Amino acid sequence: MKKKPLILVTNDDGITAPGLRTLIEVMKTIGEVVVVAPDSPQSAMGHAITINSTLYVEAVHIDTGDQKEYSCSGTPADCVKLAVKQLLGRRPDICVSGINHGSNSSINVIYSGTMSAALEAGIEGIPAVGFSLCDYKWTANFEACKSYVKTIVENVLEHGLPNGVVLNVNIPNLAKDDIKGIRVSRQAKANWEEEFDKRKNPQGRDYYWLTGKFVNLDNGEDTDEWALEHGYVSVVPVQFDLTAHHCIQNLNSWNLND
Amino acid sequence: MKKKPLILVTNDDGITAPGLRTLIEVMKTIGEVVVVAPDSPQSAMGHAITINSTLYVEAVHIDTGDQKEYSCSGTPADCVKLAVKQLLGRRPDICVSGINHGSNSSINVIYSGTMSAALEAGIEGIPAVGFSLCDYKWTANFEACKSYVKTIVENVLEHGLPNGVVLNVNIPNLAKDDIKGIRVSRQAKANWEEEFDKRKNPQGRDYYWLTGKFVNLDNGEDTDEWALEHGYVSVVPVQFDLTAHHCIQNLNSWNLND
Repeated sequence: MKKKPLILVTNDDGITAPGLRTLIEVMKTIGEVVVVAPDSPQSAMGHAITINSTLYVEAVHIDTGDQKEYSCSGTPADCVKLAVKQLLGRRPDICVSGINHGSNSSINVIYSGTMSAALEAGIEGIPAVGFSLCDYKWTANFEACKSYVKTIVENVLEHGLPNGVVLNVNIPNLAKDDIKGIRVSRQAKANWEEEFDKRKNPQGRDYYWLTGKFVNLDNGEDTDEWALEHGYVSVVPVQFDLTAHHCIQNLNSWNLND
Repeated sequence: MKKKPLILVTNDDGITAPGLRTLIEVMKTIGEVVVVAPDSPQSAMGHAITINSTLYVEAVHIDTGDQKEYSCSGTPADCVKLAVKQLLGRRPDICVSGINHGSNSSINVIYSGTMSAALEAGIEGIPAVGFSLCDYKWTANFEACKSYVKTIVENVLEHGLPNGVVLNVNIPNLAKDDIKGIRVSRQAKANWEEEFDKRKNPQGRDYYWLTGKFVNLDNGEDTDEWALEHGYVSVVPVQFDLTAHHCIQNLNSWNLND
């Protein structure tokens, strides 16, 4: 009998999040599961790591079943580093992160703690996937995600992923019958038009809340935004070589060494 | 007479950092300077933004001169958003971040608060450059950086930058006469081999410090690591479209929709 794959599960919404619990449930049908997740929500943490502070890890058991679970005081990237270098006895076959409560499509990948965990695993040479459901609510319904998560993880375990690439999977907030399938996509050009809500605190000091509206500037039918708007699960291959290779020749024509 | 360019200056080491003070000094020889920087060090914050907490901003004046300065309770990315949407009367012509105390070459770009500020400006469509000196000490000597910073900023103001691209500049920790010039480079393939230093706190509870050793896995002579090791200032064009376009065809051959 083939050995069961070892699956590292993490997220950025914290170890008690319903999205993580769904991911654990699906992963237990595929392999041996170890969970190392933040002890509190870490959304929009980007690729933060903890270098000037201590990290605490606690063995916990939140759901029934034979998965191992650890709660960690650090960021999602810290959780992956600690899991791989300290907590797991052997190298995981895959790292899955999520299921995030809220979209990480297009430019949101840059701010995403969910994806930073997947990227961290990718940097360690471990195949990795970040999953997000386009519903920010804590009470979001993850039922329709299950079969897509399973299909994608089984494909990654079968085919592997190229070096330096992880997957960013976003799932539309639809009933299972209304989801049309999976589309491999590129990251749409989009951004946030921020507005700052200026208020006064009870002591009379000004402060701000960051608010904003998401603006898709990209009409391509090959983007993740198009896929999600049209009822598809989007799968974007994401790389951490950020070099804009196409610009190097242009920059070499500048007067940098006169 | 041509109008002076408006230059937004920020960093991740905090508003009092000597590297930021050097950057302000050089930028004042080029244009009108507004500083919006974190009120405390934010290193390794990645691309974190503040969405569940309040942001405070305070007008301050740390050095002499006519630059405007604001101290902000948020992350480097928050500083740029606040500057552009709330504090500056007009759109800056360029955003410069740094000079960071310590290298942001190769994979470090992913964890870097300095570069997240530059990327945030790039996402807003503003030409942007992150500068780092390869010396982590607070007492680092930024003298040799000055002429290179000035040359690069003047070139960006003259030529502009392609949409979706910002520059990651790293400066070797050498005397001015020992720096050989500027080399446009690509991000080297490198990573950190982490080790966790496990200790017990005074209450007997285990905790960890993240430590590690940087490993360059890339022998290319066109990389930023090569440039720095050979006495050059490295300039890497960095993009925030993370799509691994070369993988899309391969993923389309998987059994995702059976």
